[in-house]
Amino acid sequence: MFYLIGLGLFDEKDITVRGLETVKKCERVYLEAYTSILMVEKERLESFYGREVILADREMVESCSDEILNGAAEKDVAMLVVGDPMGATTHSDLILRARESNIPVRLIHNASIMNAIGACGLQLYKFGQTVSLVFFENGYRPQSFYDRIKENAELGFHTLVLLDIKVKEQSWENLARGRKIYEPPRYMSASLAAQQMLEVEEERGEGICSPETLAVAVARLGSDDQTIKAGTLAELAETDVGAPLHSMVIIGKNVHDLEIDFLRAFAVNSETFDTVSKKYLAH
Amino acid sequence: MFYLIGLGLFDEKDITVRGLETVKKCERVYLEAYTSILMVEKERLESFYGREVILADREMVESCSDEILNGAAEKDVAMLVVGDPMGATTHSDLILRARESNIPVRLIHNASIMNAIGACGLQLYKFGQTVSLVFFENGYRPQSFYDRIKENAELGFHTLVLLDIKVKEQSWENLARGRKIYEPPRYMSASLAAQQMLEVEEERGEGICSPETLAVAVARLGSDDQTIKAGTLAELAETDVGAPLHSMVIIGKNVHDLEIDFLRAFAVNSETFDTVSKKYLAH
Repeated sequence: MFYLIGLGLFDEKDITVRGLETVKKCERVYLEAYTSILMVEKERLESFYGREVILADREMVESCSDEILNGAAEKDVAMLVVGDPMGATTHSDLILRARESNIPVRLIHNASIMNAIGACGLQLYKFGQTVSLVFFENGYRPQSFYDRIKENAELGFHTLVLLDIKVKEQSWENLARGRKIYEPPRYMSASLAAQQMLEVEEERGEGICSPETLAVAVARLGSDDQTIKAGTLAELAETDVGAPLHSMVIIGKNVHDLEIDFLRAFAVNSETFDTVSKKYLAH
Repeated sequence: MFYLIGLGLFDEKDITVRGLETVKKCERVYLEAYTSILMVEKERLESFYGREVILADREMVESCSDEILNGAAEKDVAMLVVGDPMGATTHSDLILRARESNIPVRLIHNASIMNAIGACGLQLYKFGQTVSLVFFENGYRPQSFYDRIKENAELGFHTLVLLDIKVKEQSWENLARGRKIYEPPRYMSASLAAQQMLEVEEERGEGICSPETLAVAVARLGSDDQTIKAGTLAELAETDVGAPLHSMVIIGKNVHDLEIDFLRAFAVNSETFDTVSKKYLAH
């Protein structure tokens, strides 16, 4: 059996009891190490599981799936995935390959940002499509996120914005010279995300990500020091919510009293929050 | 501390290690027993936790929140919730009450249908708002779900449709006579859901839930005998996916090759699936 096991949001204790029991009985255990980032070291997982954990980076998952799946028709092999195992396309791909080899697959689900974002008090059923925001660099400043948020906003939906993570990236120079030297990981902060959004707003001027747009910054969700801040994009562009990982929500105009009541406790500035949120409720 | 702890999708082993450790140290442990349904008995949870579990039905959570929160400023009290703790508005309400009493609150997240639906291979980021479908009864046949699916469909989004659960409902007669006698629980099947959708389509005729609309029925997600069936609404209206709980997805036209490849293994009828899904991909 090939198991895809979600590790949940934060550390080694976020795995489910079913997931833990499964890891302990597997012949080989891989840890997918690039579509998201667990905030603990591999060694800590290993001592918690009492098992060796093999790091699987993007190269390995994409080009060595045969090696990963090897023997899984008879033995138990697990791939650990931060969050829920179906959060990334790559895992659909692995499952398709397993099916081709008649290897049975079992998913063990867990929390992911896609549902745990409910922690900020916004109702999950009112979220539209999820959007990704990448680091703006030199000439590369894709604006498609703005159109996606706009599609949601026009229907009053909230938008979860996933922020870029750069892991195992190579500099142009190292890439050109074929040197496998990697840059240190980079995680987009919510404040940088807000700044990029405001920058695009200046160009587009459609009021989708304006300085008065109400948003939520979420940091280290599920950890003991999780931080949630609600405010305008102008405020959040100036707000440091600390260590990674960060995510954001752009609040839709179809927001409910109870959602606003819940968010108020997280306001960067209660005064502006009350003023701006009133306009949302009036809608 | 007041803990809201997600139990995940299926049975007692879907709780996280963090959740289990927390339950074991709490003074009082409540089990929320109405916004969703865990497929195990309270007694099985109790023996797994080694703790008494107090069932909290809707009446209790809504009118006895003081009792539930009593002493939680000094002692640890937990409320167990099937799925993720922020899946239902009621819990936002409990947290607001806790805040008023200066009781610290900690969420322990878990998988819920809102993210585990990714198991069918449809990409989570392409889902729009989530829709609920209630049992049609006598004159009560609300069609708002149709408009919501239409809003999503026009943008190519998938729609997760949550199906009605009737727990602790009273008959009109018992209600009128003030007798606290409850009907046996009822869970809407995916086939009934498809039938209701087709019925509304006949009236509306906008092609949103037509007999050829591609959809997915999901049953007992996260359990050993989870069942996923993909097909047209006409097919799914005739397909029995077994014991509860069921959910559905209406597939959006913005679907990707890989999603269709993944779904094909679940097709009720591969021939119709291939014919109909081609029209989706052509879009």
